[in-house]
Amino acid sequence: MSESTSGRGDAPRLRGVLAPVLTPFHADLSPDGRRLSRYCRWLLAHGCAALAPFGTTSEANSLSVEERESLLDAIIDDGVPPDRLLPGTGACALTDAVRLTAKAVRRGCAGALMLPPFYYKAVSDDGFFRFFAEVIERVGDARLRVYLYHFPPVAHVGFSTTLVERLLCAYPRIVAGMKDSSGDLAHTKTMLDAFAGAGFDVFVGSERFLLGGMRAGAAGCISATANANAGAIDRLFRAWSSPEAERLQAEVDAVRGAVEKVPLIPGLKAIVAHFATDPGWLNLRPPLVGLAPGQRDALLADITALKLSMPELRV
Amino acid sequence: MSESTSGRGDAPRLRGVLAPVLTPFHADLSPDGRRLSRYCRWLLAHGCAALAPFGTTSEANSLSVEERESLLDAIIDDGVPPDRLLPGTGACALTDAVRLTAKAVRRGCAGALMLPPFYYKAVSDDGFFRFFAEVIERVGDARLRVYLYHFPPVAHVGFSTTLVERLLCAYPRIVAGMKDSSGDLAHTKTMLDAFAGAGFDVFVGSERFLLGGMRAGAAGCISATANANAGAIDRLFRAWSSPEAERLQAEVDAVRGAVEKVPLIPGLKAIVAHFATDPGWLNLRPPLVGLAPGQRDALLADITALKLSMPELRV
Repeated sequence: MSESTSGRGDAPRLRGVLAPVLTPFHADLSPDGRRLSRYCRWLLAHGCAALAPFGTTSEANSLSVEERESLLDAIIDDGVPPDRLLPGTGACALTDAVRLTAKAVRRGCAGALMLPPFYYKAVSDDGFFRFFAEVIERVGDARLRVYLYHFPPVAHVGFSTTLVERLLCAYPRIVAGMKDSSGDLAHTKTMLDAFAGAGFDVFVGSERFLLGGMRAGAAGCISATANANAGAIDRLFRAWSSPEAERLQAEVDAVRGAVEKVPLIPGLKAIVAHFATDPGWLNLRPPLVGLAPGQRDALLADITALKLSMPELRV
Repeated sequence: MSESTSGRGDAPRLRGVLAPVLTPFHADLSPDGRRLSRYCRWLLAHGCAALAPFGTTSEANSLSVEERESLLDAIIDDGVPPDRLLPGTGACALTDAVRLTAKAVRRGCAGALMLPPFYYKAVSDDGFFRFFAEVIERVGDARLRVYLYHFPPVAHVGFSTTLVERLLCAYPRIVAGMKDSSGDLAHTKTMLDAFAGAGFDVFVGSERFLLGGMRAGAAGCISATANANAGAIDRLFRAWSSPEAERLQAEVDAVRGAVEKVPLIPGLKAIVAHFATDPGWLNLRPPLVGLAPGQRDALLADITALKLSMPELRV
């Protein structure tokens, strides 16, 4: 039901709404692959064009490389189509990023969403270029499509225009796009103006910027809140050029606003736990912690007032 | 020749000058365990009381967990005494931190130096407490000694006084100290005033603060520049209460100042490459990159003028 790809040149490209999929944990904090794959299928049936597992919202950096690999195997082996997957494969360690990215290609994923290595902060564009060049060369597979994950508010490092240009120039087919989580629509427009003509797809990092982004030529959004509200965000994505667009934007903004009153990842897990009537979804890996009961009650009251629903959520 | 431990209560404690050991890489960027162990032995023979491999200066977060484990095995199997090792075992992923910390204990290391999980930034003390509690409980070994690595300028997260107090209260024998890389002697004094009486050892994160730290009751320093200047820093450590102390502090400050004119880690590798007359030491893992030739020439001129030497360095 969702538009996951559209022909553009030699290969289908991702478009539309992608969820950085929440990672469910057992009580002992081990990841629950079976539950994750059920949830992935639900998201694909309820508004997500594709999925970006192992993002920030997925607590991916709280998982070991082996855990990320096992979960990717689990969801693909359980029937989630790899051409609708854009797993996060960035890591601080070059060897980890190579391993995760090679795995994503080997499993036939649509692309790999890569954070820059985020431990060292005063890093030059040369250093980041060298990192990505090493990953691309070592993976050594023409099927690889790299999406740059630009998230300075959390990573405290990011991609300059010069760096993107250099990467696109060196790897024009492989460097495929960006998730722009700068929180700044002007930045999204700068990236689109500079690179959309070269086939570089920009996804806004929050549906707050979806209408503005689509008007500027974005490919869609990859947003935490798509874990709970993908259907409505997808309606906005499809109707962005219609007279309904402003109203649809306001509706998704209202839900986003309610969730942003609390820490986002535990908030989203509380929403899924509520609609799935399963407190197992509340488990988070430290350093993240769950909402206080008062926060959770207020959040659930807010989303009930906004008539948010997650129909047929049996995950 | 160096004072590595001193009896204090039930177990010997680390004291003195520790180097966060530079990690040598082969030309293909794989780590060179044999060269690392030779260098470790040189450092222990030339001023280091003990060693803190796998720190920031070691590019540890640019290594996979397997690479860190293999290197620890390599240096211990090659004769570096584990009771003089304080390996970095912090990681963003709980499972990685548990695995690395358990390995350090199993190999008989003096302790484990732990960064907090550093990806998520708006993390509560509760979240960090839960992370460290999980690591300590899962390692489940009374021999474990955890040193907290407080480095807000790079990690962008750190340990509040309240958090340290809570950890010390819950794990009084296991939580053993801190590397304070805040760059703020007042913070070091706050930690010492609050917790030194409970047997909590604070190491300053730069020899710039060694004299001030020792006067306030610090246990020594764990400093990047100990990779090149441990002998002089150790002399200051031993003489801190003597009339020579101010002069010795000024001398080590002058070397530190020269190295700080350039990016610290490539600068230190350039110094070791120079004294070892081996350009292999210049290899860095991206995202770090080497000094520009002009920077390197200026650095080597500066340290020559300061008469820095690394005698008998055949590594």
